[in-house]
Amino acid sequence: MANGSEGNGYAMQAESQPAPLDASKLKVTLSETLKPMPPLDDLAFGKHMSDHMMVSTYHPVTGWTDPEIKPYGPFVLDPVCSCFQYSTNLFEGMKAYIGPDGKARLFRPDMNMTRMRRSRDRVALPSFDTDELLKIIKKLVQIERRWFPNAPDHTLYVRPTIIGTRPSLGVAASDHALLYVVCGPTGPFFRVSRMLSLMAVSEHVRSWPGGTGGYKLAGNYAPTFMPQAEAAKRGYDQVLWLIGDKITEAGAMNFFIVLKRDDDDLDVYTPPDDGTILPGVTRDSVIRLLQAHGTSTTIEGIPQTVHVEERPVTLSEVAQWSADGRLLEVFTVGTAVIVASVGRIGVEGKDDIELPKHDIQMGPVARAIHKKMTNIQWGREEFEGWSVACE
Amino acid sequence: MANGSEGNGYAMQAESQPAPLDASKLKVTLSETLKPMPPLDDLAFGKHMSDHMMVSTYHPVTGWTDPEIKPYGPFVLDPVCSCFQYSTNLFEGMKAYIGPDGKARLFRPDMNMTRMRRSRDRVALPSFDTDELLKIIKKLVQIERRWFPNAPDHTLYVRPTIIGTRPSLGVAASDHALLYVVCGPTGPFFRVSRMLSLMAVSEHVRSWPGGTGGYKLAGNYAPTFMPQAEAAKRGYDQVLWLIGDKITEAGAMNFFIVLKRDDDDLDVYTPPDDGTILPGVTRDSVIRLLQAHGTSTTIEGIPQTVHVEERPVTLSEVAQWSADGRLLEVFTVGTAVIVASVGRIGVEGKDDIELPKHDIQMGPVARAIHKKMTNIQWGREEFEGWSVACE
Repeated sequence: MANGSEGNGYAMQAESQPAPLDASKLKVTLSETLKPMPPLDDLAFGKHMSDHMMVSTYHPVTGWTDPEIKPYGPFVLDPVCSCFQYSTNLFEGMKAYIGPDGKARLFRPDMNMTRMRRSRDRVALPSFDTDELLKIIKKLVQIERRWFPNAPDHTLYVRPTIIGTRPSLGVAASDHALLYVVCGPTGPFFRVSRMLSLMAVSEHVRSWPGGTGGYKLAGNYAPTFMPQAEAAKRGYDQVLWLIGDKITEAGAMNFFIVLKRDDDDLDVYTPPDDGTILPGVTRDSVIRLLQAHGTSTTIEGIPQTVHVEERPVTLSEVAQWSADGRLLEVFTVGTAVIVASVGRIGVEGKDDIELPKHDIQMGPVARAIHKKMTNIQWGREEFEGWSVACE
Repeated sequence: MANGSEGNGYAMQAESQPAPLDASKLKVTLSETLKPMPPLDDLAFGKHMSDHMMVSTYHPVTGWTDPEIKPYGPFVLDPVCSCFQYSTNLFEGMKAYIGPDGKARLFRPDMNMTRMRRSRDRVALPSFDTDELLKIIKKLVQIERRWFPNAPDHTLYVRPTIIGTRPSLGVAASDHALLYVVCGPTGPFFRVSRMLSLMAVSEHVRSWPGGTGGYKLAGNYAPTFMPQAEAAKRGYDQVLWLIGDKITEAGAMNFFIVLKRDDDDLDVYTPPDDGTILPGVTRDSVIRLLQAHGTSTTIEGIPQTVHVEERPVTLSEVAQWSADGRLLEVFTVGTAVIVASVGRIGVEGKDDIELPKHDIQMGPVARAIHKKMTNIQWGREEFEGWSVACE
């Protein structure tokens, strides 16, 4: 009796559990007509999407539907869905690379999956196993092989996204969701090599302690567009985000600064992961490569001794280090750009901070890191299993 | 020649201007089948939508399409649209009331339109004339007259929304948009009269100086759901949002506190509109009614002398005023709730602050303001043209 009762209880529980996301149930429906491939010089970031996408939807009773890779196409959604009204939306940005062995690779995808879990929990969206999602992403990347542009520095950009689809205006967490992955061919972020100009902005604040700047939420981006447009109007490429005098990010990239102790001894500082910056995959990789430099690996082209430190950096310090002649270079990092050097920083009511110029529009440390990173990403060099083949 | 050239220039400019939103071009397509009316006791906030909606879309070349009131239905949108990826989304919340004269009324809709313009500009969405939008909203409210529930304290809730629909992953302002208005019948926020409990939260911060907490952006809401769920788990109705010790909002409502100077002399404080609180229409109305009390109007049931002040209020002050016996009541205000009294405030690691109890679950000031506000909203009483007939 007791056993039977337990058995029933277990069965009922099993029945009532919403289905988990399950990569083994992946259904693939290929498109009957493939899109024409855009020319290489038209591959601006995010402009073209490939033939297919992956979709799985969540219902609070039945759980995740069997994931499906199917022809890329629009969603049909109720006007009151949470994704429109309350921005229960988040995404990840990843790149896939074709290595010299012809294999498609992802770069440290485990870090994207970890961050996606954190973002998802922060906005109270339904849970799922990101290992399953990663398996599906690898499959999608393999299916979209023809979309890898056959040119150096070109990649397949992959955009996993979750949106809340609860069809009610009630101000509450979304217990319905749509998980999807789209991808598209992408050229180098800058077609012409050049140094970025940044405009320091403190009037508008991207992130703050206890806020959501450390999560990759859709809601972090819309408020950046107006200040970004203002910066562009004033002749700057990107906004340098501040909290008071403290630097957080540059555009949607992480910020690094290089100072000379002497010719063979450098300090590299980057703002700490204190919740006010996005914990970037490229940022973490740069820190770890610099830490490993001279011990488990070598970054060619930089001095033997580099001291990398996560510490707050203020705009006043940058101005002072620049005036002192200690400032060697400033660079920004991110998945889209990988590494970009900064040429000047605009400061309200003051002269621009002009940073040292370099022949090839990149500082020596930025250039060395860029080369090392891309070698690892493309599978030309192995480092700690960061480059993961899709097989 | 010069004239001709000017003339051509003007004509070309006129041709190339995107079309403005134009209420005079409103097209109405009524639904052929009307939905069944849900029972009165099923009218939870935001649960049911009416038969029709208004839609106009913006294209950067052609501008706003002729607005259309048409059967309520889903949107078809590309997976990379800005609304999903970058939360270029915002909304307004308004209520329509049927007055004793049978006319449908909106409450201070000009304030919603002003706030909508500010929100729209803050996230760099395409511009439009909100006077035109208001004309269309009035028309929609008239068309949906059958959806006003025939019961006291029941209203038609109206939700104007704009979402960015730029179909590209490029991180930039959305130059495509979808403007829409949906509405639905709504019962009283609380079916059973009771006092709210609030849990003070400082670990998660809703807003910040220079942030977007003062705009009605979709992106402000998703981050509140996890802390709200945590508060509910611990037995509280809503979160009391802090910046450090400073109170900003309660749930998605504005915060008021009433202190006794003596029995005939009250202080009412509410946090200032410094960009860290939503500038609520109800908040502004409460402040203005209290200012007018004893001069241009009378709020029955409160002392002759009430000093209302927008000033920072800290949680420590609330605790101290409570301990001193000076604290008469705390209440929250918003479009959905109108006015709600607070019974207790939970503070991490301390005993709850227990606020004075009242017979009908509302403090005397909250009750008096609630009555005054609803009289004006329903058109039973005139005050400064706040209640605007839809004709």
